[in-house]
Amino acid sequence: MNLNTDYNIKNVGSEVTLNGWVQKVRDLGGVIFIDLRDRSGLMQLVVRPESKSHDIATTLKNEYVIKVTGKIVAREKVNNNIPTGEIEIEVSDIVLLNKSLDLPFEISDATTALEDTRLKYRYLDLRRSAISSNLITRHKITLAVRNFLDKERFIEVETPVLCKSTPEGARDYLVPSRVNKGKFYALPQSPQIFKQLLMVGGIERYFQIAKCFRDEDLRADRQPEFTQIDIEMSFVDEDDVMDLAERLVAHVFKEIKGIDIKLPLMKMKYDDAIKKYGSDKPDLRFGMEIEDLTDIFKNTTIGFFRDIIDNGGIINAIVAKNAADKYSRKEIDKLTDYVKTYRASGLVYLKFEEEMTGSIAKNLTEEEKNNLINRLGLEKNDIVFIIGNNYSITKTALGALRCKLGKDLNLIGANDYKLLWVVDFPSFEWSEEEGRFMAMHHPFTSPKDSDVDKLLTDKANCYSKAYDIVINGYEAGGGSIRIHDQEIQQKMFEALELTPEQIREKFGFFVDALKYGTPPHGGLAFGLDRLVMLLTGTENIRDVIAFPKTASASDLMSECPNVVDNAQLKELGIKIEK
Amino acid sequence: MNLNTDYNIKNVGSEVTLNGWVQKVRDLGGVIFIDLRDRSGLMQLVVRPESKSHDIATTLKNEYVIKVTGKIVAREKVNNNIPTGEIEIEVSDIVLLNKSLDLPFEISDATTALEDTRLKYRYLDLRRSAISSNLITRHKITLAVRNFLDKERFIEVETPVLCKSTPEGARDYLVPSRVNKGKFYALPQSPQIFKQLLMVGGIERYFQIAKCFRDEDLRADRQPEFTQIDIEMSFVDEDDVMDLAERLVAHVFKEIKGIDIKLPLMKMKYDDAIKKYGSDKPDLRFGMEIEDLTDIFKNTTIGFFRDIIDNGGIINAIVAKNAADKYSRKEIDKLTDYVKTYRASGLVYLKFEEEMTGSIAKNLTEEEKNNLINRLGLEKNDIVFIIGNNYSITKTALGALRCKLGKDLNLIGANDYKLLWVVDFPSFEWSEEEGRFMAMHHPFTSPKDSDVDKLLTDKANCYSKAYDIVINGYEAGGGSIRIHDQEIQQKMFEALELTPEQIREKFGFFVDALKYGTPPHGGLAFGLDRLVMLLTGTENIRDVIAFPKTASASDLMSECPNVVDNAQLKELGIKIEK
Repeated sequence: MNLNTDYNIKNVGSEVTLNGWVQKVRDLGGVIFIDLRDRSGLMQLVVRPESKSHDIATTLKNEYVIKVTGKIVAREKVNNNIPTGEIEIEVSDIVLLNKSLDLPFEISDATTALEDTRLKYRYLDLRRSAISSNLITRHKITLAVRNFLDKERFIEVETPVLCKSTPEGARDYLVPSRVNKGKFYALPQSPQIFKQLLMVGGIERYFQIAKCFRDEDLRADRQPEFTQIDIEMSFVDEDDVMDLAERLVAHVFKEIKGIDIKLPLMKMKYDDAIKKYGSDKPDLRFGMEIEDLTDIFKNTTIGFFRDIIDNGGIINAIVAKNAADKYSRKEIDKLTDYVKTYRASGLVYLKFEEEMTGSIAKNLTEEEKNNLINRLGLEKNDIVFIIGNNYSITKTALGALRCKLGKDLNLIGANDYKLLWVVDFPSFEWSEEEGRFMAMHHPFTSPKDSDVDKLLTDKANCYSKAYDIVINGYEAGGGSIRIHDQEIQQKMFEALELTPEQIREKFGFFVDALKYGTPPHGGLAFGLDRLVMLLTGTENIRDVIAFPKTASASDLMSECPNVVDNAQLKELGIKIEK
Repeated sequence: MNLNTDYNIKNVGSEVTLNGWVQKVRDLGGVIFIDLRDRSGLMQLVVRPESKSHDIATTLKNEYVIKVTGKIVAREKVNNNIPTGEIEIEVSDIVLLNKSLDLPFEISDATTALEDTRLKYRYLDLRRSAISSNLITRHKITLAVRNFLDKERFIEVETPVLCKSTPEGARDYLVPSRVNKGKFYALPQSPQIFKQLLMVGGIERYFQIAKCFRDEDLRADRQPEFTQIDIEMSFVDEDDVMDLAERLVAHVFKEIKGIDIKLPLMKMKYDDAIKKYGSDKPDLRFGMEIEDLTDIFKNTTIGFFRDIIDNGGIINAIVAKNAADKYSRKEIDKLTDYVKTYRASGLVYLKFEEEMTGSIAKNLTEEEKNNLINRLGLEKNDIVFIIGNNYSITKTALGALRCKLGKDLNLIGANDYKLLWVVDFPSFEWSEEEGRFMAMHHPFTSPKDSDVDKLLTDKANCYSKAYDIVINGYEAGGGSIRIHDQEIQQKMFEALELTPEQIREKFGFFVDALKYGTPPHGGLAFGLDRLVMLLTGTENIRDVIAFPKTASASDLMSECPNVVDNAQLKELGIKIEK
């Protein structure tokens, strides 16, 4: 298989045969120039009037498929924008392999076609290197992952797609069974149970690049089906899994981007990440840490600060250095609206210019002003954004604002990658909706050895052996050491307020499995789509998937989901409820 | 990660730490011997009375999970049955990691446990190397395939699992859509349409190791979900695809079995395969070709032969050499019943001993006898099995009988592999059921260039650019050059008697895609499960799948499919029909 970019100036004089698509034809009064496109890029073809293929060349249009034979010659004018820019093909023969209708949009990386049009004609969109190069990178990543894990003695094992429905967490996609009418399979949200069973089964080191499914109301960065690099190991602790996983990530960065990631990665406790960055996936490509000002305002006379403090809340701030002049009243109003989407009640600002200005500047005492200047290291033209509220809302809203300012103020280097582990997650989080503690990860996550006793008595202070790997503010992967002791597993179910009947129905066979010599084990899963996005630099998940679905879970190309025959439904023993 | 079989006599004196399961404990009056099992095999542990771990060793039972530290020493009595048989571990420390209940069956390759029990406790069954070694081989095969195809510049692309239902061929598994109520996704029976669209999209060389789904009534060798090595290439003809595919297979045989497969593989026309072997997947590990005797019997007075010939039927035979004495009347009756399951009306036999005996021996003329002896090269103690019927039934029944005799008479070498291509398939096959010609493969299979004109006028003599790779009598893979010309595609749909409305509804977007510069393309798919079975030597598909389903498509371990909440169904807008 010869591709255009296999050839360069060193091949001048060679006779070659190339296949591809006509990207562009220019007839310069007899001499016809054709840009031939294949997967790798462009090649310029020259068809002279005396060539026997000149007639056929005059009939060519964009996206016609041709096979070309000719001789590589050096170009008179070098084109430095393409890899083959120093050469061209002096064409001796052209075979027209197929024609094309006029396209609904131009095959160009700079296309202005609407995404819906591109998705409807995805087979044309794939011809744009903006998309195909992502798929090539995705292929390279998965192959690098597989070879790395094979060397580390992992075995790739396929787990089932037709699984048991366990109504925990997100919604399952269901598949009606024809043979067992009235019963259903579910598509897996993850291979969690199966990979743990493989550890029970003595496989010791498992991985799988696995399709997973969640029937959620989609957001921009979600797809109903997504892919996970799923890893599980026996006889390990947290450090073993993190060591393996970070070496895997470093290997992929080296293979794909040629970047050396310094290991071991930094580890940050969950509580510290929330405290300093208002997020369990802090973006460390820029500073702007969250500062606590509560003590500075302990004697404040500013009414709403007073109320917050008296109610046990906190007052926190971030500082945008040398940016005060960039924020007009109008801009700040926009930021205020932004933080309100994170349930903050408002946004206070202070500009540090000739003097301190801003909504509360006049109400500050000299002591408070000096404390602020010292605490925050304020310099001329800095702007301080302050939020006061309960701990959670304050941190979350400032964390979100921090990320927004990081982008808006261009604080993030284009090819900068900052990786870290977030560790020591709480075992439980309080659900306002349910009025009880829920598992922060899943019910199989092991608590810290020292916190096993708190499972039933002090859930708020029970921490788990869970870890997330964070890249540039995204959770690239996460996992935990699992519970391998069935008594602790029982306790955990109890802590999650599952009745014995519910445990039996949902996890019965799994609880049984734990009783037959289960080794200590743990693992993690990377979101492949997210990893490809990070390594290709796209923010659109649909750009890294060959045939993605829209936010309403539809495929615009094949028009699916679609209506099916009543006979099919009848055979499955189901009907549509009107 | 250290495994038991990493160590041998060269490591004597080393201090090691090993993890694993207690396979067996023997207390020889103070000295305790433990067989420690891990994924790789067994290691003998020796715990002497003076060891501080002696107490804990006395409490160990089968399948307890332990971590052991000790020194490698040479064994007094070598055990040649296991790789670590020259050494043992003089144990200094044992940590009990987990206990185990008594098992429902013994962890042993020679288990007599019923398959249903093993499937219910699959996590225990996986501890048997009979199963886990298959999974390891499966992993090695897929990795070898991926690396080979990567080197050949193929890109692995994931195609969707939530697809459009197209009621062609086998039954789809359906997935109700919650967001688009009343509509359904289907799980893919193969990525056929998507891989062709990737070729339209200019990917040029695609592969995927893909899960596929068919809701069929299962036979012993079928699973509702199965895995395919799916390959598609642009700008190729049949020979290009076969060349690539056979090099891939040879690579896998070399990597996994160390066997050199001689290339190029033999090619046999479909018509010849049927004629000589009564099968489109001939097992060439033994001879016993089907011989036509119709001309010998052209003047026969044997009534039922007469009728067959007068009705345009044929009389064919196979010869089992030197086996006449192995077939009693009773045995032959069994064979007769066997061929009747292939719709043969009976089985005639002739034994060539002192004289010719058998059901029709007395009715043969001397000329017929001599012709038979010469045609079939009969020698003493040969037995001839004759079937007369129409062409199709005669060939099929004798082909099946041939395979049975090959096995029964031990004509097949244990580690013998015979690979070949079957080529030049008919485009259509006559369906008695439907009373019309159907596509033998699928509607996208290209006819031979010389047969394009026969698509509508002479379907019985229209051949296609399809090919199957056959290993030891199994179809290991198959594929074809596809139609890339949308006018020929239209003609093919017409030949299959699809109305324009049906074409639009089922394949509309695909037919459109062909109009936009589709390159010539073709490919093939290997059945991975079958390939693993061939390379591991098992006849049971469930032995090469980690979590297989039964013939009634159930998972006995998790008890799925299962009943789901009505709330879930309500959300999906479906209900169960009573």
